[in-house]
Amino acid sequence: MSSSDTTSPESGLDYLRRIIRDKTWSGMGETLDISVLEAGDGYAVAQGTPSERFYNTMMRVHGGFAATLIDTALGCAVMTKLPTMVGYGTVELKVNYVRKIDVASGPLLARATVIHAGRTMLTAEAKVADRSGVLYAHGSGTFLVYPK
Amino acid sequence: MSSSDTTSPESGLDYLRRIIRDKTWSGMGETLDISVLEAGDGYAVAQGTPSERFYNTMMRVHGGFAATLIDTALGCAVMTKLPTMVGYGTVELKVNYVRKIDVASGPLLARATVIHAGRTMLTAEAKVADRSGVLYAHGSGTFLVYPK
Amino acid sequence: MSSSDTTSPESGLDYLRRIIRDKTWSGMGETLDISVLEAGDGYAVAQGTPSERFYNTMMRVHGGFAATLIDTALGCAVMTKLPTMVGYGTVELKVNYVRKIDVASGPLLARATVIHAGRTMLTAEAKVADRSGVLYAHGSGTFLVYPK
Amino acid sequence: MSSSDTTSPESGLDYLRRIIRDKTWSGMGETLDISVLEAGDGYAVAQGTPSERFYNTMMRVHGGFAATLIDTALGCAVMTKLPTMVGYGTVELKVNYVRKIDVASGPLLARATVIHAGRTMLTAEAKVADRSGVLYAHGSGTFLVYPK
Repeated sequence: MSSSDTTSPESGLDYLRRIIRDKTWSGMGETLDISVLEAGDGYAVAQGTPSERFYNTMMRVHGGFAATLIDTALGCAVMTKLPTMVGYGTVELKVNYVRKIDVASGPLLARATVIHAGRTMLTAEAKVADRSGVLYAHGSGTFLVYPK
Repeated sequence: MSSSDTTSPESGLDYLRRIIRDKTWSGMGETLDISVLEAGDGYAVAQGTPSERFYNTMMRVHGGFAATLIDTALGCAVMTKLPTMVGYGTVELKVNYVRKIDVASGPLLARATVIHAGRTMLTAEAKVADRSGVLYAHGSGTFLVYPK
Repeated sequence: MSSSDTTSPESGLDYLRRIIRDKTWSGMGETLDISVLEAGDGYAVAQGTPSERFYNTMMRVHGGFAATLIDTALGCAVMTKLPTMVGYGTVELKVNYVRKIDVASGPLLARATVIHAGRTMLTAEAKVADRSGVLYAHGSGTFLVYPK
Repeated sequence: MSSSDTTSPESGLDYLRRIIRDKTWSGMGETLDISVLEAGDGYAVAQGTPSERFYNTMMRVHGGFAATLIDTALGCAVMTKLPTMVGYGTVELKVNYVRKIDVASGPLLARATVIHAGRTMLTAEAKVADRSGVLYAHGSGTFLVYPK
């Protein structure tokens, strides 16, 4: 989270763009094949690819997959509104499931947008759709910046 | 979902107990190291063990992990109220995160209880705590039985 | 819910437009000074005016006011997607509060949009803002059409 | 919020008990016929009585009524965990509706319990049932203490 070629602290968006450029995925990103494709002021796009490794016992993708994809996209969108990289976290996440996800769905994109950017509380929403725009899930979350 | 030694259809609880006895985890169960420990009429207990493979970029367990653990426990609790195994799914899931989860947290238990068991709509809630009872997350969900 | 000058059943949108035209508010609409201003395919706008009669003990408008305003707008947006007027209801509602509401806020508009319109399950989201676009609350809900 | 016979600041629970004893309802409490019956460490009970004044256009009680009742009970339960009366508010509220509410339901009780009591963030859940214990709705919420 530091950069040798500047003395000013890195913003959340700078940090995120560096992550995207270097393809530095998190452990969970690797485990669930989720990566961040794009980020800008107040928005982010994450991609996740369904696999049988993510199935539940009913032979479809477990609800936890879309929840993880949405939380990733929301968290990145929120990060773009943080002036400098600070600790922050999801305090609440809600997901609506509107269509069965399985391997036939293909890669899914979660597009997240910040709705409210307060100094310590931020909210954001996201929609999960396939490449042709068919909606599979959507959600929203509340985020808190941790006191220093 | 069929049983050779009986002509009556298997109930949701029978199915779930068979899954637990045979340790037949789902793909997602294997991937995120989540298993179902116990189930009875209207409740279920799922266990998940934090790992660095589930970390986000902030060096703590991604919010998707607790969401998956909670959705697993809720879905199993709901299954115990289904007279025969039918298709059903999560339509909505909400999670509250109240404490940082990392590998030091140790194995976490999600205890889920059915709140409302209607003919086509069911709701349940769950709490995620470590072995000593410290709470990390909680949530609730809405489930729909699919038309045959 | 019937119309004498036609033999075809009234659609949800027709019904809603008649309600708006005739200013036939519900009991709750009268009680909390909430009315529906506008509705079209997949969206609706409801207005609510803060009053001290809606205050909590902390001298600001009770969280129930924005929840009612949002549920009203969501329910109307959903109604516009129902081919004929059928029974339906909210099964789940989530609201985020992002700014204090009091009488100084002036009239608030809840703009709701349908996100998913299935045959029996529909979801929608809404944002509550004042006349100058300042956001006060937002939310989403899940709706079920009752079996006939 | 001050007391003449003591120099120590009033706790949230003291304040709430005084409100209950003096039947000092808020504006919204009067408007929607909701009152707080009881409060103790980490819990509170609120009562609301359905009326046609709270109906939606489908001749049942508007979803906003149970949301208000639940938010009231949650907010009071949370208040009992605040060492001194400070500003705090709902940041997020989720409600599940599981049974139709109308005047035949009779008075409803919302019993709320605090789940997590952090220094600045608290969560609580509530269930709404009639006098015989039949469940009508349930919900949960997240609360933040405002910085001084």
